[in-house]
Amino acid sequence: MAYGYWRAGRQGEAAEFELFFRRCPFQGGFAVAAGLAQVLAFLRAFRFAPTDIEYLESVLPITTEKAFFDYLRVVDASEVSVSSVPEGSVVFSRVPILQVKGPLLVVQLVETTLLCLVNYASLVATNAARFRLTAGPDKKLMEMGLRRAQGPDGGLSASKYSYMGGFDFTSNVLAGKLYGIPVRGTVAHSYVSSFTSLAEVNPRVLQPLCGGEPVDFPSRVEAWLSKVCQLLQAPLERVNRGERAAFVSYAITFPHNFQGLVDTYCVMRSGIPNFCAVALALNELGYRAIGVRLDSGDLARQSVEIRQVFRTCSAHFQVPWFERVPIAVSNDVSEWSLEELVQEGNEIDMIGVGTHLVTCPLQPSLGCVYKLVNVNGCPRLKVTEDEEKTTIPGSKVVYRLWDDAGFPCMDLMALEEESPPKAGKEVEFWLLGRTKETGKITPTAVEILHRLYLKDGQVCQALPSLEEIKKHAQASLSKLNPAHKRLQDPEAYQVTVTQKLHALFTDLQRDSQ
Amino acid sequence: MAYGYWRAGRQGEAAEFELFFRRCPFQGGFAVAAGLAQVLAFLRAFRFAPTDIEYLESVLPITTEKAFFDYLRVVDASEVSVSSVPEGSVVFSRVPILQVKGPLLVVQLVETTLLCLVNYASLVATNAARFRLTAGPDKKLMEMGLRRAQGPDGGLSASKYSYMGGFDFTSNVLAGKLYGIPVRGTVAHSYVSSFTSLAEVNPRVLQPLCGGEPVDFPSRVEAWLSKVCQLLQAPLERVNRGERAAFVSYAITFPHNFQGLVDTYCVMRSGIPNFCAVALALNELGYRAIGVRLDSGDLARQSVEIRQVFRTCSAHFQVPWFERVPIAVSNDVSEWSLEELVQEGNEIDMIGVGTHLVTCPLQPSLGCVYKLVNVNGCPRLKVTEDEEKTTIPGSKVVYRLWDDAGFPCMDLMALEEESPPKAGKEVEFWLLGRTKETGKITPTAVEILHRLYLKDGQVCQALPSLEEIKKHAQASLSKLNPAHKRLQDPEAYQVTVTQKLHALFTDLQRDSQ
Repeated sequence: MAYGYWRAGRQGEAAEFELFFRRCPFQGGFAVAAGLAQVLAFLRAFRFAPTDIEYLESVLPITTEKAFFDYLRVVDASEVSVSSVPEGSVVFSRVPILQVKGPLLVVQLVETTLLCLVNYASLVATNAARFRLTAGPDKKLMEMGLRRAQGPDGGLSASKYSYMGGFDFTSNVLAGKLYGIPVRGTVAHSYVSSFTSLAEVNPRVLQPLCGGEPVDFPSRVEAWLSKVCQLLQAPLERVNRGERAAFVSYAITFPHNFQGLVDTYCVMRSGIPNFCAVALALNELGYRAIGVRLDSGDLARQSVEIRQVFRTCSAHFQVPWFERVPIAVSNDVSEWSLEELVQEGNEIDMIGVGTHLVTCPLQPSLGCVYKLVNVNGCPRLKVTEDEEKTTIPGSKVVYRLWDDAGFPCMDLMALEEESPPKAGKEVEFWLLGRTKETGKITPTAVEILHRLYLKDGQVCQALPSLEEIKKHAQASLSKLNPAHKRLQDPEAYQVTVTQKLHALFTDLQRDSQ
Repeated sequence: MAYGYWRAGRQGEAAEFELFFRRCPFQGGFAVAAGLAQVLAFLRAFRFAPTDIEYLESVLPITTEKAFFDYLRVVDASEVSVSSVPEGSVVFSRVPILQVKGPLLVVQLVETTLLCLVNYASLVATNAARFRLTAGPDKKLMEMGLRRAQGPDGGLSASKYSYMGGFDFTSNVLAGKLYGIPVRGTVAHSYVSSFTSLAEVNPRVLQPLCGGEPVDFPSRVEAWLSKVCQLLQAPLERVNRGERAAFVSYAITFPHNFQGLVDTYCVMRSGIPNFCAVALALNELGYRAIGVRLDSGDLARQSVEIRQVFRTCSAHFQVPWFERVPIAVSNDVSEWSLEELVQEGNEIDMIGVGTHLVTCPLQPSLGCVYKLVNVNGCPRLKVTEDEEKTTIPGSKVVYRLWDDAGFPCMDLMALEEESPPKAGKEVEFWLLGRTKETGKITPTAVEILHRLYLKDGQVCQALPSLEEIKKHAQASLSKLNPAHKRLQDPEAYQVTVTQKLHALFTDLQRDSQ
């Protein structure tokens, strides 16, 4: 395609593309736009390496003119400009996320990369936002999907954009290092099952927090286990010794950060008594355990049972903080199972989500497209037999209109040359699609949706940090009418066009037939 | 976890992990194992960079001993050994894909990376294999999923492992450069809609293949269009001029490789007449068009209609090859829609698959796990409340047994110390799970499933090329009994254990309770 443009001398024609999706993901009412910073970084660095040119020479027809490769050697994005919604903004179907202007050949060449960088980023940020909406603001959410992602880079994208969409932590240590995302993790079942008895624990001593003689920790734990088993009426011989050794070893290693993975063996007969014994022995030395983690079975029910045990121990042994020991869970948690957990009632403090977050099984791709809307100042249209695949022509400004309840209520697309709608002034709009439906609205506020981020290849706007984008995403979501935020059967947010844009669309559609 | 092992002085204990999945993906009967070459490359290069250590120092508790970081500075996989099924082999649930032996701390540290490298690779290779089985051996399959993948690296993995699983081409040019996969592509709709009239075509002349005076190509096309429209009884004024300009320009640029994207406007009234006119004008100059591409609507029905037009033109204009012009399609093709296409009857030669190939929406993650089976020569077991999550303990050898119909019929897991089953000799087996079911089988051939690929950090086996792995995958699949290859409701392939392994499992299960 590039060679076609070049050979026709059209490489430098002024063109504009829009990147947008046609339907909100997950049958929801919104998406969170993400990927902008990576798009800008890609465009700034866009060049063909000498080995790229060599490869292209080897695969293009031998009739391809040498001068074309000379041209490719110097091509870059120095004449490309990009307008975008701020990263983390709530966006809706058909509204451009990116508006990309520049020489026809260049802006065409970057199509697939821009789609790749925005599609998955926005999909997983939206998915994370939905998990956050389902979990509510108080529960901690941890992303732990690296093992199920599309390779190491897919895993990093998942960590970054899950955090952007509303998660608190990641288990991906490299994402912690590269992006500053708080990392969390516990031990694996294999750590627990790698121990068989307390004889393997080494070192055995632990110094009390406030100083003093180090104590033989395993024997303290054994003493506490007897008391705990008596209190809970749990048979001592059913409490697994290897698991206890693993907990003791971990507690000696991280006395300030002891967390017990309690389901390697039986949770209520082994994991919980072992955890309580170790945590109470730690408490005696001045340390507080940071929690338990459950990775199988009925998470809500077990969390309630475990909380009951913690309350019993707290009261009986007079350790007030013990009743609030955080309970973390993981086990293939999905949006649905999370909703069930929330409705059922539970005592869970932190939820780890992996597969269902990073692979987005409810809809594993966002389906963004990148469509030509203008060449040489002339609006362009693609009309196909699928009405949904028809594009909206012309260089546009998009206005977000606010209603008197204080919510954004409509995105209105206008041609660049039109004068903007004004707050308090009635404006006419056309609905998208084949209908001839029109309406009028008087917005209480009008916001221009896009900002210019890249001007002739140079970033011309300070880019926010990941932390700031995450805050913007939550703020953007919190402003949205709850009717559009419902995860099932949301009310569709209105996306409309002005009379002029509608007329242009109709004219071009007629001309193309 | 690593610090826990290190502080307990256990970092060097001899440990063994197995990497396997619990259920075949897509409710199918098999998977194609992939990712081994990347696993080996990762292990050979496994080191912590100084900045990694700095980062870890910043996030681990301040009580962490300095000596631990000194240890991490020198840790590598030089004592790690890996056995694996050859990459591209057909594998079944519960059978290890990888067996990883080495110092406890190191083989534990690499867990997530190995899972990440094998999980998606095997998933998408399996998905590609299913598309190949559905399409049959003759249709060409092209991967075109980059825009919907998890970032650029996810897209590269998708291209590589789709090719391994049975695809012919990729649209990902970098995958072509890096892996030598044949690349294919056509123009986008935006290329077509960027043209409005033949006046934009430049250069306009094309030299006949056998030499001679260059001709004004657009006027030749206009002449052919009149003839084509007359033959097809298509109204000339409905045939889009911009589309024709795009086709003409493309044909002049790539006279040997002209392919028409025929659905930017109306397929039968515009795209096809324009294509035929350009292709027949090319034919007159000695060139053959390479095909059409359809990207919307009912692909099977349209392909039949288009073929009919090609036959009509072929007969009327006496151009024999024209009736066989290849028809390529794309439009969100899924396994189901492909099956429908195949059953419905169609005239399609090449199918492009993107989203449904790379994101695997039928099951977007394979769910491989990495489980400890041995420490210090002692077999280890994880017993949980989910029976399916229970592991099979001990260092094993896996034998693939063949039946007298010439198919592999059972994978039998045995302890390392057991003597191997022999062809023609009866062998007893136990089914996996809680059942006490046993049986006997007399295999006609016995194959050891795993090979040693990494010995003490060194690759000790010549690694096949991507092309060879692709061939091995097709060979491995072709040997499989069709009953296991059925995409819906396949017969489950038997995975069993020997009496000794079963006894060990039962003993350890009892001990843990």
